[in-house]
Amino acid sequence: MEENSKRIVIVGGGLVGALCAYYFGKRGYRIDLYEYREDIRRSKSPRGRSINLSLSNRGRLALRDVGLEEEVLKSAVPMVGRRVHFQNGKCIYSVGRNFLNKFLLTAIESLPNVLLHFDCKLIDVNLKTDELTFYRCSSQDYLRVTGDLIIGADGAFSCLRRSLQSTPLFDCSQTYIDHGYIELRISPEQSHLMKPNHLHIWPRGSMMLIALPNIDKSWTVTLFMPLSEFDRLVYKEMVLEFFKQVFPDVIPLIGTDQLVNDVIRTKPSVLVSIKCSKLHYRDKFLIVGDAAHAIVPFYGQGMNAGFEDCTVLNNLLDKYSEDFGRVLEEFTRLRVSDAHAIADLAMYNYLEMRDLVTRPSYYLKKWFDKQMHRVVEDKWQPLYYSVTFTHTKYEVCLQQRDWQSKVLKRSLLLFGIVALSFSALTFINIT
Amino acid sequence: MEENSKRIVIVGGGLVGALCAYYFGKRGYRIDLYEYREDIRRSKSPRGRSINLSLSNRGRLALRDVGLEEEVLKSAVPMVGRRVHFQNGKCIYSVGRNFLNKFLLTAIESLPNVLLHFDCKLIDVNLKTDELTFYRCSSQDYLRVTGDLIIGADGAFSCLRRSLQSTPLFDCSQTYIDHGYIELRISPEQSHLMKPNHLHIWPRGSMMLIALPNIDKSWTVTLFMPLSEFDRLVYKEMVLEFFKQVFPDVIPLIGTDQLVNDVIRTKPSVLVSIKCSKLHYRDKFLIVGDAAHAIVPFYGQGMNAGFEDCTVLNNLLDKYSEDFGRVLEEFTRLRVSDAHAIADLAMYNYLEMRDLVTRPSYYLKKWFDKQMHRVVEDKWQPLYYSVTFTHTKYEVCLQQRDWQSKVLKRSLLLFGIVALSFSALTFINIT
Repeated sequence: MEENSKRIVIVGGGLVGALCAYYFGKRGYRIDLYEYREDIRRSKSPRGRSINLSLSNRGRLALRDVGLEEEVLKSAVPMVGRRVHFQNGKCIYSVGRNFLNKFLLTAIESLPNVLLHFDCKLIDVNLKTDELTFYRCSSQDYLRVTGDLIIGADGAFSCLRRSLQSTPLFDCSQTYIDHGYIELRISPEQSHLMKPNHLHIWPRGSMMLIALPNIDKSWTVTLFMPLSEFDRLVYKEMVLEFFKQVFPDVIPLIGTDQLVNDVIRTKPSVLVSIKCSKLHYRDKFLIVGDAAHAIVPFYGQGMNAGFEDCTVLNNLLDKYSEDFGRVLEEFTRLRVSDAHAIADLAMYNYLEMRDLVTRPSYYLKKWFDKQMHRVVEDKWQPLYYSVTFTHTKYEVCLQQRDWQSKVLKRSLLLFGIVALSFSALTFINIT
Repeated sequence: MEENSKRIVIVGGGLVGALCAYYFGKRGYRIDLYEYREDIRRSKSPRGRSINLSLSNRGRLALRDVGLEEEVLKSAVPMVGRRVHFQNGKCIYSVGRNFLNKFLLTAIESLPNVLLHFDCKLIDVNLKTDELTFYRCSSQDYLRVTGDLIIGADGAFSCLRRSLQSTPLFDCSQTYIDHGYIELRISPEQSHLMKPNHLHIWPRGSMMLIALPNIDKSWTVTLFMPLSEFDRLVYKEMVLEFFKQVFPDVIPLIGTDQLVNDVIRTKPSVLVSIKCSKLHYRDKFLIVGDAAHAIVPFYGQGMNAGFEDCTVLNNLLDKYSEDFGRVLEEFTRLRVSDAHAIADLAMYNYLEMRDLVTRPSYYLKKWFDKQMHRVVEDKWQPLYYSVTFTHTKYEVCLQQRDWQSKVLKRSLLLFGIVALSFSALTFINIT
């Protein structure tokens, strides 16, 4: 590893911050990573949200480039279920958030040039002096730091992004959806009732339940529905009545008591989508991951998109010989359009997963999509395939869907006309 | 004044924060107002941006309700110029930002139950403990406070709003326009060249210059244009060449040397528009003014909308017997739609002022608008009139414009057909 006297400050030690630190650490920079939580490897109650995550090709490539993929996959569960079953045997993985985060923190700690600082909450960014102020809860004091490059991987409510939003032409919008989610659990004992290695989906129009497998044979079940529906589920009877009506087969999987308790006790989490028109400021500040492009979880691409940021950043550092000014500018240019595309796709999938999959027309289209892919693999990639199993720019995936939709509609129309004409001719011949 | 043991914390001592403090102070609450700057009444160089502001009916009503209007108008310059000249002699006022801010601070200081704290920059909001952390630059220490109600009037880049954005369903978008502005000055000596008591506008398509009168007979001139154009004006020759081509009559008003120096030296300010879907959180937090709805300045309504927040808030406190929970909820319900409406109107006026006013069709419409208003005053209020000279909800002003536009288009079409028919008949009679 080359030595490099430049100092990189990374804000946030979640998945993307940790992987980003590993990338820069591998390049020989001096890295200081500041995380507002305690070290999750030592804390007893890590935060509970989104226990497991989908890991697909983009995320895998980012891990592979720094030699971490193999180890991660050992603790991930492949999901080859219907929605992700392609003829060439590709699959996505279900991987535990806490496992992966701990794994990445340990990986970066093995690098001598990386320092981890926990319990440091970023509270102020001075864009003139490039100074960050962190608050340390345990010692109730404040810490001031700066660096040659400051990277915000501090999540959807990024403090760094909020500061950058006051710089010229840094547009930003955040949109909550009116659905929230809670996480439930199927214990390993009930696991025999579930088809293994699949992503299970219960689509129900305005609501949806999904289950992802864990390495210990338990399943994490996520219930998505309007926040107003959650508000109604306050008594045992209501919860049971609701599940009997909407998801009757899930009751034995989780167990009546467990189900009722968890639903009543758990406050639903909300979901937000964030789009920015810029991801950097000068040659000094950059945001990545959720801080740059939080998306709704319905494409399983949140972590993958964040990891892909690391790949893109790494390639640009090579291309522009680590000239931060050019790297950051190019990162914004390349990544904003992709971030917007995957945000839109995720939002669209939110509709598709809970509603469209219940309609026959959806399956007709899917079937046609699959046949076309079978015949001209490279030229016709179904949207889900290109997003999940290739490294095609998200923006291009979205563009492909647009022209494919047109072809698909026309083909189905043509097919209808031919079928009709054929029937008519047959009818004439008969009479 | 009744005594009230409840404590109100106000963040920001700009125009809206100060007026809001005055309103609550008048009601007998204990008020603490925290402002990040030094006391502008003592500082030598108050910040330079938007030296003077348009004060129209909404702002005047808010000042009048607490008995401050008369005093302010003494130091304001009425503008009765073409764009604001209505037959009933209504006018808007040009008022100095610094004067008004100092005046309001002095007014609130006269109330025994209000305390002002300067040099206190809000850096953290704890939404669980309702605790605010301020940083004091002079003593380099931190201050923690809380209150029964916490109001953020801390401007477009409000720290309080940023915290509220992490609460459920608090959507927010911020959009920069690609135009910036700089402020120039016409000295009192050149003032005889300007028609007094008018708002002067030089519309030039993609750019625009406006001049507002000051009480000392000087004028504040604001040049709006694309940021890319400002970037080009770096040398004396370029500045002069530009003004000779685009605003030749402005050169003698400002003076060649002064003009060139000011344009080269001044960094253009950027303009941002901010829309939120909520303006409060629980019964505890509220945002007002630019923190809640920063808008572009082209309708002269920024301050007026902020002041109107105080009027609305005050009326709701009466209506709901100071039950903060209901007041805040109702404030969001009433004010979000108005804030969005005036944001859109201001953005539209940005186009109208610099471009549409140069087209004949604009004047035909304006003329028709005026005639209709003359005939049925109450039922037909031109948009500019209702926004500037009434207290009609902004949302309703916008709705009125929509149906008026339809009537106007149809009437002009009908007028055209009648005129054409008449010409045709005349022609037939002649031949």
